[in-house]
Amino acid sequence: MFENNSRTEISELGEFGLIKRLTEGNQLKKESSLMGVGDDCAVIDAGAGMSKVVTTDMLVEGVHFDLSYTPLKHLGYKSVVASLSDVYAMNATPEQITVSVAMSNRFSVEAMEELYEGIYLACDKYGVDLVGGDTSNNKQGLMISVTAIGTAKTEDIIYRNGAQENDLICVTGDLGAAYMGLQILEREKRIFLENPNVQPDIQNYDFIVGRQLKPECANKELAALNIAGIKPTSMIDISDGLASELFHIAEKSGIGVVIYEEKLPIDQQTFDTAIELNLNPPTVAFSGGEDYELLFTIKQADFEKIKGIKDVHVIGYCAPAIEGMYSFTKSGTKLSLEKQGYKAF
Amino acid sequence: MFENNSRTEISELGEFGLIKRLTEGNQLKKESSLMGVGDDCAVIDAGAGMSKVVTTDMLVEGVHFDLSYTPLKHLGYKSVVASLSDVYAMNATPEQITVSVAMSNRFSVEAMEELYEGIYLACDKYGVDLVGGDTSNNKQGLMISVTAIGTAKTEDIIYRNGAQENDLICVTGDLGAAYMGLQILEREKRIFLENPNVQPDIQNYDFIVGRQLKPECANKELAALNIAGIKPTSMIDISDGLASELFHIAEKSGIGVVIYEEKLPIDQQTFDTAIELNLNPPTVAFSGGEDYELLFTIKQADFEKIKGIKDVHVIGYCAPAIEGMYSFTKSGTKLSLEKQGYKAF
Repeated sequence: MFENNSRTEISELGEFGLIKRLTEGNQLKKESSLMGVGDDCAVIDAGAGMSKVVTTDMLVEGVHFDLSYTPLKHLGYKSVVASLSDVYAMNATPEQITVSVAMSNRFSVEAMEELYEGIYLACDKYGVDLVGGDTSNNKQGLMISVTAIGTAKTEDIIYRNGAQENDLICVTGDLGAAYMGLQILEREKRIFLENPNVQPDIQNYDFIVGRQLKPECANKELAALNIAGIKPTSMIDISDGLASELFHIAEKSGIGVVIYEEKLPIDQQTFDTAIELNLNPPTVAFSGGEDYELLFTIKQADFEKIKGIKDVHVIGYCAPAIEGMYSFTKSGTKLSLEKQGYKAF
Repeated sequence: MFENNSRTEISELGEFGLIKRLTEGNQLKKESSLMGVGDDCAVIDAGAGMSKVVTTDMLVEGVHFDLSYTPLKHLGYKSVVASLSDVYAMNATPEQITVSVAMSNRFSVEAMEELYEGIYLACDKYGVDLVGGDTSNNKQGLMISVTAIGTAKTEDIIYRNGAQENDLICVTGDLGAAYMGLQILEREKRIFLENPNVQPDIQNYDFIVGRQLKPECANKELAALNIAGIKPTSMIDISDGLASELFHIAEKSGIGVVIYEEKLPIDQQTFDTAIELNLNPPTVAFSGGEDYELLFTIKQADFEKIKGIKDVHVIGYCAPAIEGMYSFTKSGTKLSLEKQGYKAF
């Protein structure tokens, strides 16, 4: 079947390496294609100074979610949030989604209704319409692919490549909670499998478990920035972990970054759970994925304006590219940033 | 896991029944959502009299394709064609696609490159840009989801619901070839599995096998209609089989249909192979899927204009809804149309 003689495993390249390999010869020919692969969304000129932005996210059972502890309703909600988050990360307003679902015979019509209940709930919450999609049988498991379409003035769109030296680096909300929630759910699953009579112990972890199962977009913080008259110089959403996203911004913008660990917003429950599980809280904040917060950079001149905005935190600044990427621990130790993040392969 | 007590199998509803069930409460709230679920594409207002159309198609290994006789390059090509065909069916021009692929460890980087070679080939052929997507590991098999985005003047868009009594029913190209190609490929696979030393006998079936493995869109015929100044009153692409698409047009437009079997365009090789396999050629034309031709209706006044257009065939007319849906055989027998078509469940 395969004519090539050599065989390279996809895991050798990783997701970003594979995408790079598959798209390196890709050239945009249409005038309306303003941005292709390489940002949170593609950007398509809609005429009269307006653009549509488009993003596709796929969730695969056994890779991105585990139905033994993920209610289908939450899964539907999360699959929409994951796509809308990419639209907000372009400073655009999401308006429509399409949803494709492939499911094995193990799923009933009622199960699909639960999934779609969550999808519609997210549509209502964020004011978007479900306008299309596809459904198919699948040999094994469940797969959900959500395409989100947003609208923006073309001049308002924010890319990953606009950060400049001395810009301040900011994040919304708090980091690492979804990852710690996942660790607790995985722990309780292991305990349950060993002894099905033990009740799961998650009531003390409600916040982090909620952040894992039912995340939200940082649209309120984005709206607050717009109201305050702050236009970020670059922006990306945090789906693969802060460190991974910082690398994207740095690479596209041609800058270095300096992060102060004590400035990282970490919720108390995230912090306590990390300690309980012998994890370093800043590492969790850097490497945990699925936060769906926004990472962005602003001009230093905007510092006074941003100080009063709720749930927005300045965590560092952009340095010359030559200085590389590093963080300072609370005690002042300088550490190289590692390109860790959520792995889909 | 599932809170509902009742369990309805998805196969009881079928694909269209499931979509209906999952979307029956769905209401469009955005002004820009001009058309949601229920046509070949969703239609999104882009301002200044222009619209973007969006469609998503998913191909799942073991359901939509069999890699034992489908080269990955052809599969990539076909997955794009399947989506673009929906854009043309709205009388829109496709401009961008996003591609999501989930693949198991069995696939190498080189295999993915073959798949994308076909994807890019289709992009070149139809003048569209690949602008985004997603890739993920999959527990088992290969899944491809292509979202296509097109552009059109809002007033030029053609829906399924515009057919009226006495309109003529037309199709492009020829029908049933892809289905017969599939039958030959399946036959040769069975023979090969029984005796791996037998060489596959497909050289006499090159046309129909080609139509199955590497279909094309009917964009030239659509362009010819536009040049001739003919605006169809309704249109749909033939992906699930002519009969199934006729039911969609009839249901949305509130009409009946009369088809003359002798007018159905059936290629000689399709015809001969149907006879060889003891199948009735008109039934193959009605029920075979994956033709990716266009089915459309025109005003009777346009009959003279359409007569000279290559590869466009008048196959019947629209009757009052009360008369139902039927065909006349060559010998004049009146038959009820059956809602057969390709099944994804």
